[in-house]
Amino acid sequence: MARHLEKIRDLIEELRLDGILIKSKTSKKYLDTLTGSGVQILITRDNSYAILDGRYLSEARERQDELKIIENTPAKSNKSHFDVVNEIFKEFNYSKLGIEASSYSISDYEKLKKYYFTVTLVNEEINEARIIKDEFEIDILKEACKITDQVFADVLKHIKVGISENEINALIHYYALKAGASKLSFEPVVTSGPRTALPHGRPTDRKVQANEPIMIDFGIEYKNYQSDMTRMVFVGQPSNDMINIYEIVKKAQQAGVDEIKSGALASEVDFVVRDIIEKAGYGENYNHGLGHGIGIGDGCEYPFLNQNSKTILKDNMIMSCEPGIYVEGLGGVRIEDDVLISGGRGIPLNQTTKDMIILEV
Amino acid sequence: MARHLEKIRDLIEELRLDGILIKSKTSKKYLDTLTGSGVQILITRDNSYAILDGRYLSEARERQDELKIIENTPAKSNKSHFDVVNEIFKEFNYSKLGIEASSYSISDYEKLKKYYFTVTLVNEEINEARIIKDEFEIDILKEACKITDQVFADVLKHIKVGISENEINALIHYYALKAGASKLSFEPVVTSGPRTALPHGRPTDRKVQANEPIMIDFGIEYKNYQSDMTRMVFVGQPSNDMINIYEIVKKAQQAGVDEIKSGALASEVDFVVRDIIEKAGYGENYNHGLGHGIGIGDGCEYPFLNQNSKTILKDNMIMSCEPGIYVEGLGGVRIEDDVLISGGRGIPLNQTTKDMIILEV
Repeated sequence: MARHLEKIRDLIEELRLDGILIKSKTSKKYLDTLTGSGVQILITRDNSYAILDGRYLSEARERQDELKIIENTPAKSNKSHFDVVNEIFKEFNYSKLGIEASSYSISDYEKLKKYYFTVTLVNEEINEARIIKDEFEIDILKEACKITDQVFADVLKHIKVGISENEINALIHYYALKAGASKLSFEPVVTSGPRTALPHGRPTDRKVQANEPIMIDFGIEYKNYQSDMTRMVFVGQPSNDMINIYEIVKKAQQAGVDEIKSGALASEVDFVVRDIIEKAGYGENYNHGLGHGIGIGDGCEYPFLNQNSKTILKDNMIMSCEPGIYVEGLGGVRIEDDVLISGGRGIPLNQTTKDMIILEV
Repeated sequence: MARHLEKIRDLIEELRLDGILIKSKTSKKYLDTLTGSGVQILITRDNSYAILDGRYLSEARERQDELKIIENTPAKSNKSHFDVVNEIFKEFNYSKLGIEASSYSISDYEKLKKYYFTVTLVNEEINEARIIKDEFEIDILKEACKITDQVFADVLKHIKVGISENEINALIHYYALKAGASKLSFEPVVTSGPRTALPHGRPTDRKVQANEPIMIDFGIEYKNYQSDMTRMVFVGQPSNDMINIYEIVKKAQQAGVDEIKSGALASEVDFVVRDIIEKAGYGENYNHGLGHGIGIGDGCEYPFLNQNSKTILKDNMIMSCEPGIYVEGLGGVRIEDDVLISGGRGIPLNQTTKDMIILEV
């Protein structure tokens, strides 16, 4: 069964449209439908359709959900999915179509003028609709975070002096996919030594040396929902400078978790954390926002926790809390949890310890 | 050093522009620059710039290439990258900017009107520029295909009755990333039994049973270039129906490889292969094109081999050749190579056998 159709219908009502056309993978996940590039979902006042090309036909039938399947293989029919929508709109005498701005390129602007319908761009509204999670979504995200903890624990057993960043990354993928993740939420950050000063460094052939930091930032996609966690690992006793930075970030991160509660202003949460890092003398070394929404993800999940975010936090929102300090030449530290607001309070869904993880050399 | 800047400059010349702004990850890979979302590359008649936000600064400096680094963190400066481009255009008295249509959403259309420059959309031209590979690119793709063969051989050792599709997928990732792939080219197709009838089926918890087909379609990204290979594996003797389908696809695929040569029309190559499958009585069961370009990939690599493609094939093009037959209820077969045209002839870069791979139960 497709999900959240009623949320899209609410939007149709609110924006006084006749239908909304869903083309982004993100929104198709939200609806729990097929997500392939040749699949578009049209929700109208009266019906729901899956417009798809031949490649997806048997998979669509297998699902047996309430969407009416319309096969349209453009290479054969010479009809675009907009032509199909146009026919439906004519049939039902509809005129106002909402489309997802992010799914259409700037070059589509002129093309859309020839149709029977007028177009409204609805991106933000759909993202906003996703910000409050229902019980079904929260349960999936709890499970995703639990698997994430387990994957981290599995990978940890292999970490020792001489292992390469690439191999750590390979192990993350192996354990995550074996455990049933459909993919990783994003390309993991796996860095070691001075490379940990790159906030988004990608793994290389570099081999881990004794007493160095290792930064591991990864998440899994599980039943369409994406976790995200960052932990530091040290093989052998780290330097005093690294310990000092670690303790500041740990304290700042905990302060962030404590500030995440219903009624809080997102920019204020960011401020509290940033203030701790600034007062410790590392303001210049923390050059990104505090967090972002956790859910289907794909880079557009609300709320954002940063200096400009005016969102008022509420129950059943989930967001990352991930301050960091990055010192060129020395290295960096980031600690990240996914925090659910429940009963007014922020509750990290990850169970992995935030104490320093120091493995024996 | 950035690469292919001269190709972009040729385009600037040809299209009578003053500069081209590169924002797509695909084109940033082509230029061999940083590929993060906060990085834009501006190539003008006179200079080359990397416009990037603070997160990428130390990595950009580390590279020391010939791009002038301009730091612009929109959250701090309140300037978009277009504002920065606008300033440069004013300074040099330029007026004509090319941008990549695929990188800008339909909602950017109106916003771009306020600038000093006029905009030309240049997507196709950059894709076209990438169609002929140079020696550097061919060497990387040969290496990528070699690693792909090795990963397949590594995974094959683990395949037996009872292994799940998810675990096969996990092993593909493990061996690929350990071997230095930066990621997989796409989410692999790993299906077994009747699920092989889904041309793009994703792995599940389903466990492989004896005498069943397994379809494995994966590729690796290596130094920004993406391989793509499909092979079938059987654990125990397959049914006569599957053997029959396999032999038809194998014959059709080899005919495709033989037809891929300089001077051939892409649609004609597709026709020859399709004709073999149709005459064998499976025309209805082959519902996709024959192939697509191999290179940086990301879904927009030329040439396409399908019924509508008017491309004349030339030396140093690389493309997949991947016919398939999919029978609902029974299963499917696809065989895919990456084929380089060299010395006028199509040469598969994969070495993995195309004879039936039948493992002992």
